[in-house]
Formats: sequence, C-alpha cells, structure tokens
Amino acid sequence: MGKLLIVGTVAFDVIETPFAKTDKIMGGAANYIAVAAAQFGVNAAIVSIVGEDYPQPFLNLLTDRNIDISGIEIVKGGKSFFWSGKYHNDMNVRDTLETQLNVLSDFKPVVPKAYKDAKVLMLGNLHPKIQLDILKQMNKKPNLVVLDTMDYWMNNTWELLVEVISKVDVITINDQEARQLTGEYSLVKAAQKIMNMGVKYVVIKKGEHGVLLFHQDSVFFAPALPLEEVFDPTGAGDTFAGGMVGFLAKTDDYSFENIKNAVIYGSNLASFCVEKFGAERVLELSKEEIRERLFRFKELTQFEMKIA
Amino acid sequence: MGKLLIVGTVAFDVIETPFAKTDKIMGGAANYIAVAAAQFGVNAAIVSIVGEDYPQPFLNLLTDRNIDISGIEIVKGGKSFFWSGKYHNDMNVRDTLETQLNVLSDFKPVVPKAYKDAKVLMLGNLHPKIQLDILKQMNKKPNLVVLDTMDYWMNNTWELLVEVISKVDVITINDQEARQLTGEYSLVKAAQKIMNMGVKYVVIKKGEHGVLLFHQDSVFFAPALPLEEVFDPTGAGDTFAGGMVGFLAKTDDYSFENIKNAVIYGSNLASFCVEKFGAERVLELSKEEIRERLFRFKELTQFEMKIA
Repeated sequence: MGKLLIVGTVAFDVIETPFAKTDKIMGGAANYIAVAAAQFGVNAAIVSIVGEDYPQPFLNLLTDRNIDISGIEIVKGGKSFFWSGKYHNDMNVRDTLETQLNVLSDFKPVVPKAYKDAKVLMLGNLHPKIQLDILKQMNKKPNLVVLDTMDYWMNNTWELLVEVISKVDVITINDQEARQLTGEYSLVKAAQKIMNMGVKYVVIKKGEHGVLLFHQDSVFFAPALPLEEVFDPTGAGDTFAGGMVGFLAKTDDYSFENIKNAVIYGSNLASFCVEKFGAERVLELSKEEIRERLFRFKELTQFEMKIA
Repeated sequence: MGKLLIVGTVAFDVIETPFAKTDKIMGGAANYIAVAAAQFGVNAAIVSIVGEDYPQPFLNLLTDRNIDISGIEIVKGGKSFFWSGKYHNDMNVRDTLETQLNVLSDFKPVVPKAYKDAKVLMLGNLHPKIQLDILKQMNKKPNLVVLDTMDYWMNNTWELLVEVISKVDVITINDQEARQLTGEYSLVKAAQKIMNMGVKYVVIKKGEHGVLLFHQDSVFFAPALPLEEVFDPTGAGDTFAGGMVGFLAKTDDYSFENIKNAVIYGSNLASFCVEKFGAERVLELSKEEIRERLFRFKELTQFEMKIA
C-alpha cells in the first residue's frame, strides 16, 4: 500500500441550496479528498494551512481516519480560508457569495519528512506556485502525480500553470475549463492538446453528465449515478479525486485498466457526497455501501454485447 | 425477423451550421428512422405523406434499401412538409427558422395491409391523434410499440398524448421534455412517473451526454461516442430510434438485456449521423463500420471490475 500526499485547502464553507443552509462547515479541497481517500485505508497526509479559529473537532475527523495532519500549519491569530456559495434550482450552477483567502494568501507549504517519498501525490486546486513548490520538495518523483485546477489559474497564472501541467501524470478538470485551457470546443480535441502538454491521463469532469478519461488514443467513460435528488454538489469534484487517488494509492497500479476502476470509484464516492451537505455523507459511509454502489455502477454500464 | 412499421414525417430540410448550409435535403423523422433501421436488413415500411414536389430520387433511396413506401401518400399538387433550422457554435442549441406543415396538416394515415401485423411499431414524432389512429389500424398489438414525441404535443394536445403514452411499451424523449411531461427535475423521478403512465421502458435522450434507459427499478446508461467534430446534429435522435427499432425488429427479443443492446446500436448509428449533413453519412454506411464502432462503444464503457 502506497503513501498518499494531499495538498489543498482546509477551510470553512457556508452553503445555501434551495432546500437549506449550513453554518460554517468543514470545507476545502484537501478535506474532501482526504476523507474520500481514507475509505481505502491508505496512509495519507495533508499539507495545508488554517487559522487559529479552525475547530479541533474538524481536525479530529481527519486524525480519527488516520490522516496525518502534521503538514497542516496552524497560524496563531490567523483566520482560516472561507468560502460561501449559493445554488439555485439547477444545481449545476452556483454563485460564489464570498471568498476570504485569509491565511492562505501567505502559505509556504512544507511536506512532512515521512511523506517526501509518497507514491501518489494529489495536488488539489491551489496556486500553481504552491503546487510547483510541493513537487520540488519530494525526494523522488512519485509514481503518480494528479493535478486538479480551475479557470482562475488559467486567467491569472497561465505560465506557471502550464509548467505544473508539464510535470504531472493525471489532470482532473471540468469540461468548460478543458475548453478554456485549449481553445477547443470538442473535448476529444481538448484532451489531445492537454496530453500534448505532457499529461498521460486527462480526466474531464462533466458533473451530472459523468467523467471522460482520455489516454493516448483511447477514451473511457464513467457516468454519474442517476440520483433521485441532489442535495448539495459542493465537494463532489474533490471527493471524486479523493476516491480516485485513494484507490490508486491502495492498488499501486497505474495502468489504463486500473485507472478506469479509479474513475469508477471516484464517481462512486462523489455520488454519496451530493446526498448531504459538505462531506457529511462521506464521513459516515461504510465499505459495504461503497461496494453495493459499485454493483449499481456495474448494472448501469455493463452489458452483454450482441453483434447484429 | 419481424416486420417493422414506421410512422413519421417525410420532408424537406434546409440546415445551416457554423460550417456550411444545405439546399433542400431529405429530412423528416420517418426517413431518418427507416434509413437507420434498414442497416439491420429488416422488412420495414413507412406510413407518411408528401406533396407532388417530393423528388423521386429521395424515395428511391428508401426503395433501394427494401423499404416499403406503399404507405407514403403522394398528394397531387400538394407541397411536402418543410423545415429549416440553424445551429450555432454550441451545437446543442438550434433555432427553427421556418416550418411549413403543407400536406401534413391534412394527413389521414393508412397502414398497408401487409404491415397491419408488424411486430415492431415505431410511432415517430407526430400529432398524437395520428399515432392513435395507427394503433387502431393494427390487426393485433405489436410485440413492441415505441413512441417518440416532443414538447409541442405536451403544450397543445396533452390529453391525447397521455392516451398514446398509456398504450406504448417504450418512449423516447429528451431530458427537458421528460421534465416538462412530469414536473420532476430529477430524471430518475421523471422516468418513474412516466412508467406509472403505462410505459415499460423509458429512454431519455441527453444529446451529447448520452441516453438513460429506465425499466422498473433498473437503469442503464449508453454514452454518446465522444467525437472530434459534430458536423450536423439534425436527425440524430430519429437515427437513434431507427437503430434501436431496427435491432429490435431483427432480434425480436424485448428483454431489458436486449434493449440495452438496442440503445447501444441506436447510439452507434446516431454517432455516424452527426458526421455529415442529414442522413448522408448513414446512407453510405457499411455493416463493417457499424461493427467496428460497436467495439469502440465497448472500449468506452466496459471495464474489468476490481473490488477495493
């Protein structure tokens, strides 16, 4: 079983949907990723930063799951990263109401010694400068580096972002961002261009429309599970990434065939994430529920092919 | 091999895309359905109506494929149904520029004697009154009745449409129309409500995002093939239906497992349809191309499941 290092935000979220509204809950990419990956029983650590206002019980949710938090810097007198957003009836669209970077604006990440040889490195959505810094701190190239990013970094730190992309094995990105990154409307063409930037696997997230996995000339598709109700989509993308890297760190197999399974597990965990606010549902999840849902994914996609 | 009866429009289309514009080409639901179904070598007939202006070469494209056109009424001095539309850069959205019903406004369909015992009946998108009339003309209930419809009939002929729905086995409908028909945003809930209206299989078409097939408590998903370029989406939905009913008429097996294959074949043929204007690409298609693409669908969706 390989070690998994996760870099990303540890934050407060306040979420409003047509159904309900939260107080300040546990949020941030690294939290979602770690909680999902922990379902695979891997050794995982987070590199991040919070303020003194960050509640110990939130951190305990991580340590209870054997997640090493020695790489989470706690800034005395500092305030944690804060995000609030609002969803409308069409849950595919959300408005960001407020973003406070707070301690994140001055973040100098430090990789814990024990994780400088991590087999899998998950670079959650953050400033590409920080992502590059982490890559430099590793003792040796991890077996797999996965990058998540967003349009903000394309608009503001293009050259740094391109440099990070050239150094990673897998990128997860949504469809609109893939189009923006490449200037190609066709996702097939966009994925080819991103692979030409140096990435082996391109994972394009289409929300409720599933995930496309591109590798060389091949493509694999994992649908999202059709659900009766989406309660809160916040964190679904990060939970997807967490399920993916958790499965990969556990299996230590980076073949196309195994990465197909990884995106199915990612979609599996993401399908739970949207059932409650934030990471609530994934925090209470059992291995049996994940296995049962895996068979629902199988039923959803697998068929006995007949040649007419 | 079962007989397939197809009811729908036989028309002129004029299509404009960001890339090019057509003259008056062969269009209409029945044409697309029949040309796709003909790939399976089934005995098929069309019930429809055209004006005297409809070109013999267009009809020859059908008879060349052994499609019985004795049920296509040709109105002396009449003008054929005409539709023109324009696509923008996002090919998911189109504007209808002009619709002329012409001879269609006075259509009294007559099922050819030899097809009153058809095993599969495909009711293409038309006035529900005409669809009901066809059902009444059948000698016995077909093994499978498939209905396609659209929002226009929901808005204008609600009660007749509900009556047709109660008499069919399969409905094909797009995601927005499924929501409008049921008042449910969730497609899972929408499909359940439609099944409660008397339908055994609900096929929800999501365009480039694929197709959901609902049956009892089960759901199967067929993705659209990711393409480098979509040249013209006109007729893709009808071509999908044609591939589906062609395969089902050929195999005469209406189990859930076989209908999964039918929606894969429908998606297969639709993926060709969008490569050229109108039905052009499907008209020139070979069995080998369809088989090769079937293996691409397999590669796209099938995986060796690993339990983590």
